[in-house]
Amino acid sequence: MNYPNGLKKDRTTNNNNLCNKYINYANRGMNLEDDLNKTNEYYRNIDKAYIYKKPTPIKIVKVNYKNNEIKEGYFTTPSTTDYNGIYKGKYIDFEAKETKNCKNFPLTNIHPHQLKHLENIEKHGGIAFLIVRFTKLNRTYLLLEKDLQNFLISNKKTINIKYFDEKAYLIKEKYTPRVDYLEVLDKMGGIEYGK
Amino acid sequence: MNYPNGLKKDRTTNNNNLCNKYINYANRGMNLEDDLNKTNEYYRNIDKAYIYKKPTPIKIVKVNYKNNEIKEGYFTTPSTTDYNGIYKGKYIDFEAKETKNCKNFPLTNIHPHQLKHLENIEKHGGIAFLIVRFTKLNRTYLLLEKDLQNFLISNKKTINIKYFDEKAYLIKEKYTPRVDYLEVLDKMGGIEYGK
Repeated sequence: MNYPNGLKKDRTTNNNNLCNKYINYANRGMNLEDDLNKTNEYYRNIDKAYIYKKPTPIKIVKVNYKNNEIKEGYFTTPSTTDYNGIYKGKYIDFEAKETKNCKNFPLTNIHPHQLKHLENIEKHGGIAFLIVRFTKLNRTYLLLEKDLQNFLISNKKTINIKYFDEKAYLIKEKYTPRVDYLEVLDKMGGIEYGK
Repeated sequence: MNYPNGLKKDRTTNNNNLCNKYINYANRGMNLEDDLNKTNEYYRNIDKAYIYKKPTPIKIVKVNYKNNEIKEGYFTTPSTTDYNGIYKGKYIDFEAKETKNCKNFPLTNIHPHQLKHLENIEKHGGIAFLIVRFTKLNRTYLLLEKDLQNFLISNKKTINIKYFDEKAYLIKEKYTPRVDYLEVLDKMGGIEYGK
């Protein structure tokens, strides 16, 4: 039996469990990072926004200078978020995370200095947010920095999905672009050129 | 004999050659990247601006997952400029280059897509520029994107230092911060919050 949006009922799981009720077959193989890279590429192609993922920070230990090959290196902790750029004259900055968890988003997914970075950006007039995908539910949310900060006051270690339903914006999945987060920012208002 | 600003006359070279007339001994060992990293750190520490150097893009080929060690990787061409961030609510984006050349800055130092990137940023309301240091002259200039674009129309492959003297802004070297490029942007006006 086919469900709308490529959703199929999974007969092997307990229907009372929201997490396992539906398994999405439409989006297999694409992760949030791929979707965002394709989305940002689309925005650049139509000259809408210039937002890039930053390269993964690596500490390089040994290089073969003959062919510029890195022989030894280590992944290091990023100081900032993964994505930034410009849209309608505004500085855009966000972190994107996936979780397999169905009810909660564990804040351990984000480094404390990344949270501090988002706070600084907001304070200096940028547009800062989180994009969180609950992969098993196939839901992707945009949570503005101010609502993230309001949550952090609680000192809780996980954000319940109800908080996302209440405060965040659901990004509807499309074919092109896949994760149209700028449409969400537009709908929220406030992102007007030069304002 | 001591000259102002730590400059010493080099007796071994031809005085008619601007390049070799003075050798700077004050700044030995610090390169432009180090200076900019320290400057950006200073700006962050005083909560003035949040501008970072992006990590070097690397294509990772082989990883030892036991200790997260990169066993094989290669440097790749950057799609964007090296530095970006936020200052007074404005999106800031620039590329920084050193040259040992004394009379000309060779444009081969910058990838064509980096030039295109700076153009896009300017068009979308960001503040885009080049920082160029003539190491042997110990002069560091800030050249705004609009003046860079005006030069590129000429199709010349090198920018003569006279063009920098005429169109760019000399960044006076200080102890802290070492390369105070935001002071230059401030003096030029136009970087007012929200404008």
